[in-house]
Amino acid sequence: MGIISKDFSFGSLPAGKRDLITDVPGVKVGHVTLSDGSVQTGVTAILPGPGSTFRQKFPAAVHVINGFGKSAGLIQIEELGTLETPILLTNTLSVPACLDGLISYMLADHPEIGTTTGTVNAVVGECNDSKVNDIRGRHVTAEHALEALHNVSEEFAEGAVGAGRGMKCFGWSGGIGSASRLVELDGKTYTVGALLLTNFGRKNQFVICGKKAGEEAHAAEEDYFSRDTGSCMMILATDLPLSSRQLKRCAHRAQNGLARCGAQTGGGSGEIVIAFSTANRVPHDGTETVHTAQYLHEDLLDTVFTAAADCVEESVVSSVFHAETVTGRDGNTLEAFFAGR
Amino acid sequence: MGIISKDFSFGSLPAGKRDLITDVPGVKVGHVTLSDGSVQTGVTAILPGPGSTFRQKFPAAVHVINGFGKSAGLIQIEELGTLETPILLTNTLSVPACLDGLISYMLADHPEIGTTTGTVNAVVGECNDSKVNDIRGRHVTAEHALEALHNVSEEFAEGAVGAGRGMKCFGWSGGIGSASRLVELDGKTYTVGALLLTNFGRKNQFVICGKKAGEEAHAAEEDYFSRDTGSCMMILATDLPLSSRQLKRCAHRAQNGLARCGAQTGGGSGEIVIAFSTANRVPHDGTETVHTAQYLHEDLLDTVFTAAADCVEESVVSSVFHAETVTGRDGNTLEAFFAGR
Amino acid sequence: MGIISKDFSFGSLPAGKRDLITDVPGVKVGHVTLSDGSVQTGVTAILPGPGSTFRQKFPAAVHVINGFGKSAGLIQIEELGTLETPILLTNTLSVPACLDGLISYMLADHPEIGTTTGTVNAVVGECNDSKVNDIRGRHVTAEHALEALHNVSEEFAEGAVGAGRGMKCFGWSGGIGSASRLVELDGKTYTVGALLLTNFGRKNQFVICGKKAGEEAHAAEEDYFSRDTGSCMMILATDLPLSSRQLKRCAHRAQNGLARCGAQTGGGSGEIVIAFSTANRVPHDGTETVHTAQYLHEDLLDTVFTAAADCVEESVVSSVFHAETVTGRDGNTLEAFFAGR
Amino acid sequence: MGIISKDFSFGSLPAGKRDLITDVPGVKVGHVTLSDGSVQTGVTAILPGPGSTFRQKFPAAVHVINGFGKSAGLIQIEELGTLETPILLTNTLSVPACLDGLISYMLADHPEIGTTTGTVNAVVGECNDSKVNDIRGRHVTAEHALEALHNVSEEFAEGAVGAGRGMKCFGWSGGIGSASRLVELDGKTYTVGALLLTNFGRKNQFVICGKKAGEEAHAAEEDYFSRDTGSCMMILATDLPLSSRQLKRCAHRAQNGLARCGAQTGGGSGEIVIAFSTANRVPHDGTETVHTAQYLHEDLLDTVFTAAADCVEESVVSSVFHAETVTGRDGNTLEAFFAGR
Repeated sequence: MGIISKDFSFGSLPAGKRDLITDVPGVKVGHVTLSDGSVQTGVTAILPGPGSTFRQKFPAAVHVINGFGKSAGLIQIEELGTLETPILLTNTLSVPACLDGLISYMLADHPEIGTTTGTVNAVVGECNDSKVNDIRGRHVTAEHALEALHNVSEEFAEGAVGAGRGMKCFGWSGGIGSASRLVELDGKTYTVGALLLTNFGRKNQFVICGKKAGEEAHAAEEDYFSRDTGSCMMILATDLPLSSRQLKRCAHRAQNGLARCGAQTGGGSGEIVIAFSTANRVPHDGTETVHTAQYLHEDLLDTVFTAAADCVEESVVSSVFHAETVTGRDGNTLEAFFAGR
Repeated sequence: MGIISKDFSFGSLPAGKRDLITDVPGVKVGHVTLSDGSVQTGVTAILPGPGSTFRQKFPAAVHVINGFGKSAGLIQIEELGTLETPILLTNTLSVPACLDGLISYMLADHPEIGTTTGTVNAVVGECNDSKVNDIRGRHVTAEHALEALHNVSEEFAEGAVGAGRGMKCFGWSGGIGSASRLVELDGKTYTVGALLLTNFGRKNQFVICGKKAGEEAHAAEEDYFSRDTGSCMMILATDLPLSSRQLKRCAHRAQNGLARCGAQTGGGSGEIVIAFSTANRVPHDGTETVHTAQYLHEDLLDTVFTAAADCVEESVVSSVFHAETVTGRDGNTLEAFFAGR
Repeated sequence: MGIISKDFSFGSLPAGKRDLITDVPGVKVGHVTLSDGSVQTGVTAILPGPGSTFRQKFPAAVHVINGFGKSAGLIQIEELGTLETPILLTNTLSVPACLDGLISYMLADHPEIGTTTGTVNAVVGECNDSKVNDIRGRHVTAEHALEALHNVSEEFAEGAVGAGRGMKCFGWSGGIGSASRLVELDGKTYTVGALLLTNFGRKNQFVICGKKAGEEAHAAEEDYFSRDTGSCMMILATDLPLSSRQLKRCAHRAQNGLARCGAQTGGGSGEIVIAFSTANRVPHDGTETVHTAQYLHEDLLDTVFTAAADCVEESVVSSVFHAETVTGRDGNTLEAFFAGR
Repeated sequence: MGIISKDFSFGSLPAGKRDLITDVPGVKVGHVTLSDGSVQTGVTAILPGPGSTFRQKFPAAVHVINGFGKSAGLIQIEELGTLETPILLTNTLSVPACLDGLISYMLADHPEIGTTTGTVNAVVGECNDSKVNDIRGRHVTAEHALEALHNVSEEFAEGAVGAGRGMKCFGWSGGIGSASRLVELDGKTYTVGALLLTNFGRKNQFVICGKKAGEEAHAAEEDYFSRDTGSCMMILATDLPLSSRQLKRCAHRAQNGLARCGAQTGGGSGEIVIAFSTANRVPHDGTETVHTAQYLHEDLLDTVFTAAADCVEESVVSSVFHAETVTGRDGNTLEAFFAGR
């Protein structure tokens, strides 16, 4: 769990207590992992904070590095600058089941949705785990989504778990990776955290802390799955008071972290960043015509940008370091990076 | 069906044979309507053309006028400039069911999806019909989505049908509206068509061909549903050879048509345009490294822009003129515009 | 000056005292008009507020309706969400001269620019007045730009003045138009204002308050200048506390006002909106790490959107109603709309 | 000149003959360098190809990584997907002079501009060289711009020359860097090239081929110029048949190359990419209503993306390796990286 920052150096900022996105106060993460023969998939839930996410929304932003992706809910985040549900991650063809489960989760606690107020913008991200998972079988259900949402905690596993179960990162078993960084401002300590669902890159591209960790791919690998397809979903969280515009600027820097790991941002790999702040929550109801918010001065964002990119870089590596070997559909195997070392 | 251009004037370009989006050769539309007490909703399917939409994709673009919406599949259209599935329209909370049905529809005919090639980007648009529909009940199923897809035809009904069943336009019963225009170029006739799911505006805003058709809203109406909430989904189709960039320019002009009807583009009304061309279909497989396409000269787009805006304007009015009175949840009623006239 | 709202109705919100953008407290406008034979052009300056625009920036946003335009400074407004100079308007080929003049204006009062802090993002918008103006002669100088900046006042002329001297709107003499609307919130009165540089549309398209005011163009007109080319620059100002994201949403609604006048948003007509707020000025220096700002609740934006669109619609008409007949290059003439009526 | 790829490895694709952007057939580059005491600046011109750039435009795209920049002409590239002039690079406050010179250059050969057809979209990029250059003095003139345009050649110098004279990259003297890569497709060889104006980064961030080349900055450096401000302009060129949408996708990958050099994309550093193709030139005149173009299959872009990022990475390093020590304003010095090694 988040320990790799002790052995490897991803920038010079200190990590938080757990070196996980849940170091940002209020953020919790939960998994449901399905692992049975040709079913190697799951759901990961990210709860942005306590209380109703709908009635007290979170400033948020989206940055699409490469839009080869089927995530849901991004358009409204871009327009309104707010996140009003937890975020679910899953496999590409299970987005509908997770959307449905997330809607059920929101309706359960909010009788006003769809009756006396508008509906709700459920946010679900995805990567394609079809190398080892029977993705066409759509084995994730709305109930699994609810289960992941109920499993959320400040402690959570990385690697081939939850939505990360069947993911492939730089040719190895990948999946969930996370990291955090502490930023000091005016004597106060803030936290920036990332959680990634990694599913991109070829074996020969992987770079760890500046060192080539890759190997040349075997000729036999030259099928669809050996290309740089698959995607990477990136969630950034912070308790810094950032506007949606500032969060979008942070999200742009996620690409720096990916690139330092050797990512080539393949055309078939959807790289999407969702960033949110737990400060300045935005009320759904307009009982106050004007609300007051606090924002970081623009000149101070550089450290936050560095923290975001460093978290992303470490999260990629952490996902690979934590992921076990996974064998699934048609005997296809994602080998653990450390297997046999 | 599409007859209103005979009695009203929406610009000076001639309409196609049916004055419907299906005047664009290959485009077909199908509905499933659910109308039973508090269930007043449905699905509308737009098939962009014959053959496999996945193996021979359609140049396409998206324009978000106001991103208060929960449509799925837009990000990938923006990145790749192609549409690879039919488009489904439904109510906001039934997006997951329609996504799931549309994925099933695509998987059935494409065994390669998720096995030897990537997944598929299903496109579903939505509006909120909760004034008369029990939207929380999520009565639309994946099977309804499949049924709408199998119902597609060149002839289809407008008004309170399909996804339009429970929609409210300028305070009246609204829903599905469609229109087409013919454009002559170099002695060849091309068609531009629009299909709208209208669910926006207040009674006092409605303008028909420059004349105020609105009435002041009753004081009693001042609840959530009397505000300019709800959304408008707009589908533009053409057989003109347009690139995705040119289609995006056309999509920008949809707002002109809406505005001429009195639309104020309310903050809670998601106005989203998806435009596609049936020319220059793009092969999924890269067996040809380079493909040849034909494009309209940029200077000739003005007539296409006018055709697109005129189709949108007429479609709004047509949706209202065709829609019958609908009574649903809690006895809430959407009155037909012509009721009692 | 701004009187036309008394005789014509552009929506139901009340206009401010002058019915000009300068009803927004602190906003001032100044012109320099060049009118001498084939030189029919000028500069218009919009000062967003008192004090240093650089040291206390204005929240701002840009919306590009149709990017066929050569405006300068827009990219940085989009990134940082702030305006740090006055805005100048001029003819297309005089953007360099106005940029240079505006930079001189900023350097004069800010010795820190380019020495101990960064440079400055000068904002200049433009339309093409080449039908009557010898645009290739680039007769506007940096000194004219400075003169316009020094001419700013709360009272200013509309029509064929300043940057509007040689502009053509719906085939008539056009140019500078302006309007304002008052918005009440919680017992406090705020102002929304617009200033337009109108240079778009064909004679047969013009619509005034829903009535077709156009005439069919003469066949002889079918040259470059009879097409819908030219552009429209739109400046929106308000003292409402709006974030850059909210200002961008307002800017999107400018298209509604244009469309109601009959605009077809021709492919060769660059329609660009710059919106700023005089509330929540943003300090250049980061001496305070965190600053506090107030923002309007999102649900209350609808009235602001309506005010913005109504101001734009009235400004288009006002520009034409105020513009005198202008004869310039090669004897080309822009006839006043009221000439001979 | 472009030799560093022989000694260092930036990816595995072969470089072109010169390892410069001018390996793309038709592309030429020219400099004017001003070096006299406190004047340390200049102009660099990139000519995209032979013949009239206005009458036969180039498919093009823009990607703004960080919009803290004052470049001109980007909006129209985004809208129309074409480049119609050479590109000039200079210092931030000399954008007006270069715009003016570039307009003169275009007017000279095109009597139709501003008389019988529209105007012209001049494209000028910039970085802030104020540490060593008296930027406020605006020593670059329109004549310098013309001179750079007339100096273009297939051979050109890198380092502290032209617009790069006073630029600072990772704390060292930087400026102009360039590289090229060859891509084989179907037995045909295509070229991808980059030219960068580098002016970003702090000393301790620099990474060369994965190895930290940085040193901790001296405490004395902690002023405005020691922050990550300054910007990086990136020009990508290719003779591959790419649409403007595909070029934009390539431009997104430039960030990968920057990041691999250690770039943190500081908030005050404007990182902007302009990409163009010399294939499929687009006629200004619409005499042909429909034109035919060839495009690369989307799946084949991955190699192009890698080529683009590798060119960018090498160009950054090349700019530093070629730049001599520059002393200017107030005795401020940009030390050559190799000085004293």
